[in-house]
Amino acid sequence: MIIILKKQAEEAKINALKKEMEEQGLGIHESEGVNTRILGLVGDTSVVDMRHIMANSIVENVQRIQEPYKKANRKFHPNDTVVDVNGVKIGGGNFQVIAGPCSIETKEQITEVANDVKNSGAGLLRGGAFKPRTSPYSFQGLHGEGLELLLEAKKATGLPVVTEIMDASHLPLFEDVDLIQVGARNMQNFELLKELGKINKPILLKRGLAATIEEWLMSAEYIMAGGNENVILCERGIRTYETAMRNTLDLSAIPMIKKKSHLPVMVDPSHATGIRDMVEPMALAAIAAGADGLMVEVHNDPAKALCDGPQSLTPEQFDTLMKKVNKTREFFQAL
Amino acid sequence: MIIILKKQAEEAKINALKKEMEEQGLGIHESEGVNTRILGLVGDTSVVDMRHIMANSIVENVQRIQEPYKKANRKFHPNDTVVDVNGVKIGGGNFQVIAGPCSIETKEQITEVANDVKNSGAGLLRGGAFKPRTSPYSFQGLHGEGLELLLEAKKATGLPVVTEIMDASHLPLFEDVDLIQVGARNMQNFELLKELGKINKPILLKRGLAATIEEWLMSAEYIMAGGNENVILCERGIRTYETAMRNTLDLSAIPMIKKKSHLPVMVDPSHATGIRDMVEPMALAAIAAGADGLMVEVHNDPAKALCDGPQSLTPEQFDTLMKKVNKTREFFQAL
Amino acid sequence: MIIILKKQAEEAKINALKKEMEEQGLGIHESEGVNTRILGLVGDTSVVDMRHIMANSIVENVQRIQEPYKKANRKFHPNDTVVDVNGVKIGGGNFQVIAGPCSIETKEQITEVANDVKNSGAGLLRGGAFKPRTSPYSFQGLHGEGLELLLEAKKATGLPVVTEIMDASHLPLFEDVDLIQVGARNMQNFELLKELGKINKPILLKRGLAATIEEWLMSAEYIMAGGNENVILCERGIRTYETAMRNTLDLSAIPMIKKKSHLPVMVDPSHATGIRDMVEPMALAAIAAGADGLMVEVHNDPAKALCDGPQSLTPEQFDTLMKKVNKTREFFQAL
Amino acid sequence: MIIILKKQAEEAKINALKKEMEEQGLGIHESEGVNTRILGLVGDTSVVDMRHIMANSIVENVQRIQEPYKKANRKFHPNDTVVDVNGVKIGGGNFQVIAGPCSIETKEQITEVANDVKNSGAGLLRGGAFKPRTSPYSFQGLHGEGLELLLEAKKATGLPVVTEIMDASHLPLFEDVDLIQVGARNMQNFELLKELGKINKPILLKRGLAATIEEWLMSAEYIMAGGNENVILCERGIRTYETAMRNTLDLSAIPMIKKKSHLPVMVDPSHATGIRDMVEPMALAAIAAGADGLMVEVHNDPAKALCDGPQSLTPEQFDTLMKKVNKTREFFQAL
Repeated sequence: MIIILKKQAEEAKINALKKEMEEQGLGIHESEGVNTRILGLVGDTSVVDMRHIMANSIVENVQRIQEPYKKANRKFHPNDTVVDVNGVKIGGGNFQVIAGPCSIETKEQITEVANDVKNSGAGLLRGGAFKPRTSPYSFQGLHGEGLELLLEAKKATGLPVVTEIMDASHLPLFEDVDLIQVGARNMQNFELLKELGKINKPILLKRGLAATIEEWLMSAEYIMAGGNENVILCERGIRTYETAMRNTLDLSAIPMIKKKSHLPVMVDPSHATGIRDMVEPMALAAIAAGADGLMVEVHNDPAKALCDGPQSLTPEQFDTLMKKVNKTREFFQAL
Repeated sequence: MIIILKKQAEEAKINALKKEMEEQGLGIHESEGVNTRILGLVGDTSVVDMRHIMANSIVENVQRIQEPYKKANRKFHPNDTVVDVNGVKIGGGNFQVIAGPCSIETKEQITEVANDVKNSGAGLLRGGAFKPRTSPYSFQGLHGEGLELLLEAKKATGLPVVTEIMDASHLPLFEDVDLIQVGARNMQNFELLKELGKINKPILLKRGLAATIEEWLMSAEYIMAGGNENVILCERGIRTYETAMRNTLDLSAIPMIKKKSHLPVMVDPSHATGIRDMVEPMALAAIAAGADGLMVEVHNDPAKALCDGPQSLTPEQFDTLMKKVNKTREFFQAL
Repeated sequence: MIIILKKQAEEAKINALKKEMEEQGLGIHESEGVNTRILGLVGDTSVVDMRHIMANSIVENVQRIQEPYKKANRKFHPNDTVVDVNGVKIGGGNFQVIAGPCSIETKEQITEVANDVKNSGAGLLRGGAFKPRTSPYSFQGLHGEGLELLLEAKKATGLPVVTEIMDASHLPLFEDVDLIQVGARNMQNFELLKELGKINKPILLKRGLAATIEEWLMSAEYIMAGGNENVILCERGIRTYETAMRNTLDLSAIPMIKKKSHLPVMVDPSHATGIRDMVEPMALAAIAAGADGLMVEVHNDPAKALCDGPQSLTPEQFDTLMKKVNKTREFFQAL
Repeated sequence: MIIILKKQAEEAKINALKKEMEEQGLGIHESEGVNTRILGLVGDTSVVDMRHIMANSIVENVQRIQEPYKKANRKFHPNDTVVDVNGVKIGGGNFQVIAGPCSIETKEQITEVANDVKNSGAGLLRGGAFKPRTSPYSFQGLHGEGLELLLEAKKATGLPVVTEIMDASHLPLFEDVDLIQVGARNMQNFELLKELGKINKPILLKRGLAATIEEWLMSAEYIMAGGNENVILCERGIRTYETAMRNTLDLSAIPMIKKKSHLPVMVDPSHATGIRDMVEPMALAAIAAGADGLMVEVHNDPAKALCDGPQSLTPEQFDTLMKKVNKTREFFQAL
């Protein structure tokens, strides 16, 4: 971290600031130019609050050189993390497809879709029981009852299951869920992240609607700092000025995360685009960009889906997609 | 709501769609052009899920004509809502300034600041006990202990108090809080919003980091649909590509909200800009734009603030601001 | 186009509006609901100015159903356009890589790079002579002299050349250029677009920094409306709030453009990311997403490049990339 | 400027980099930490290309400490610039309102509006003759004929006139124009900026659709570096994800520009919002935020305006606005 001092900074205040930094265990290197005097902080600056230093009246500017995350940082953990979801591995060369409906609606629906996606080669089953909907008048999910149906589908197929949590108080209901999803709107629900840091279950952390890559990794750091290092990231499109698609899928986030972090990164082309036709090209592009897996919405009757029908594939479309996904995976592994 | 059908839509499927809409209590007006056939839905479309219709294979596009919110909509509630916060009124011509530190740190700090801001004319006292911080290594607030200190300052000054809630499970601690704040990162924490809809206490709903005005009003609708109509909106800057300021304060949201909704709108120039010097011009501009109040950070020693020092005013600076705020308010009321 | 009238619209004004629309050759279908009365315009609405109608006092809202572009619209031109750049075809299954340095610097540099990229399989040579630089103090390109060096490299290698035009008055210098590039900052330099519509040379139209897909197609429409239908689009990243990369590469624009338009779409992963390491994954992802070609920066000595060194590949790195690009192309053509 | 070197940087390469910097007239201060070695550049770094240094293989990162603009920088020109537009002063306490129609349509229209806005107190007359329209099928302005009508209105009223230039080749037509406007879409049309740097006429430089404040000042620097220091900035809304308004008016840009630059800043609430009702609150808020002037669209018959009718005020509405503007100006000058 570099502190740029104001030209007219008083010596006494500079000394006080230096002392404050040293008391945090940091070394200091000074550099003086014609117009600027600089303090370089040496040591673990991830615990230093930049804006606290900015508030000092003698400080012109502060710039961070090292990343503010440690546990999620590839510098301190050079090897890829492999997350084990009830026997199914993700990351470090292990690629998985999570598939299923946006919402769990009936026993028949979830079981039928579960069997279909399993037969097509999906490694995990998704299905929403608690649904974050923009409108209070939209279908909000079947809650506990939905989770039960999901667990029946798990029993029937043997697929590990993934579902979204919206509040830490619901955690007891998630005991048999294999991978707990934190949705985009809760990426900075820090109380929820802290609770998830205390459990030992893998977490699928979706990128916030307008979260920077650094903020996303800081949210992973919240979970990891609590002791739970089983975090999988999931890119699902960011909010931009473009309205032709629901969101703008940021595939460059994949190689950028791979540089900065050791955590696996999946991609959700269904939510990112919101348009059925775009799921396949974006899924294949995600593989090309290095994703560790995909999350795809599949519904047995998209026109009747209670949620996100326009982006859901039919089981037949998903089957076609999986054939291409598998070949594409093989191709890029061999490339 | 207008449904634009695909050119080659089959008659049977059109009839099925019409029946589905009619079963929701909606009337239908058809219009047929050379290239397009249109179904206009007549009635309360706020409960219709646009994306559900989009998922129908015969539908080309769907466009909403009426707003998806009802309780927050000025059309159905033409008069300004006035929210009473323990005797202090906000909205409908009642203007208030909420002031205080970002975080509650010590008894001396909060009480001193409380006395200062009261003497300068603030109508409510703010102070954070639960702090949503990007980094798990930053100061997270004093939690329950902080709330106690805030309530002591309330007792000492008589000012109603405002503080942020981060999880519904903390609600019992907020019994004596007068105005509960929902922060930007929790604007779409729907579980929290639902719980706040069940209580009778006023809610200060900050705009999400990248929330549209419509999404923001839909979050207000969540609270109001639950039965709690005491919602105050607070604009605090949105995320844009510009990095010179912390966020981009969207003052045009004020007259836009005034057109669309009857709820009061306050402005937080401190968080929006993140820079002390910019608080005054943005505060005065907010008044000119029609804001119903301001939320301003004040700290007795900003350089030592545990949070957001660079944007905090000293009590002296706040006193100067309040003199200008009062004159500006008077001027615009008379204009 | 749908015109939603205000509830209290006067009959006389409605009739005047209808007459105005009919005089533009449009048919009108009316539909009346409880709260709203709607006029549906039938015919070629691409010439109708929505905001002109919005200005009418009886109009509540106007919504476009058909795209405002005709020549660039796939609806009226279902087959892919193939652009012939001096014998090298792009689009409709023809894939090309444009490669070369950001700026033309010396005869040796451009000729050396030209030979290298040709040997690696590039189909066209790029090199900037007029450089749009944010700072007036940065290297602005060699201008006419640079174009001469580029044309010498063309002669030496036989590769068609691509270079950026910054002002219509420079057109005479571009006579032997094979593909004229319009840069992101000039995508809405309409005077330039109009001039390029009058010539018969292919145009590479880069997407503006913050242009929607519709605006981008409207800029293509400017060129095409003038009579020049040889337009190739080039996605080069858009401006978002994310600062980890230079821009956010929007690969979903490729399948979206393919739905909406028949024009070829290339991708420039070098400018989009600004980071050398990210060029390869984004190039391969672009192919997977359906791009008709790539534009890649190559420099014989990136550390000494006068412009955009951090994103330039060395000729060796480009050679490696091309081997992967070719295999990836083959793979996806067979998929 | 600070250069952060990679940990394993070779001494020989470091020395070569240092020599390169010293040859540009810069001094170097070194600082070495446990993990990082830093070179601080001392001197005029506005001419240094950051990305050129980034391309060096031993460089980890580069951070700018001083602004990249000189002529537009308040540090080197502490007093406010006052621009004299044919006797009408803007900046340094001089406030002006520019008013008139979006497009010049007929002699009657422009003369009538000119008289009206003069009578209401506008200091300058605006009117577009060259119109940058998204669609090639929209009205493009009357060009030379329009400029003649504008100059007649100038003669009739004595008001200095403001109009937009879209291409440097049109400059001869602008000889009697008093203030030449560069529109948002041409803010980075560097060839145009360079030509405007060679003349002696004041330039009104609108902010680009998605331009940062720094880029905007760099575009002013282009004009000033050429020798023309008569630049007035004009904020007109930026592109964000919000679609309720046409653009998001960034009023915080005013105090930020005032910190960074000595140039006057005006605000165009008409284009920013695109909505008539929002012009007044945003105009008054702009004054409160410290703007040096306003640019407001006025049309004698907005419903028939060939361009931007929905945001145009009638002369009566403008007269009401001006009364409030004048009182508001007086109030804030006295505050």
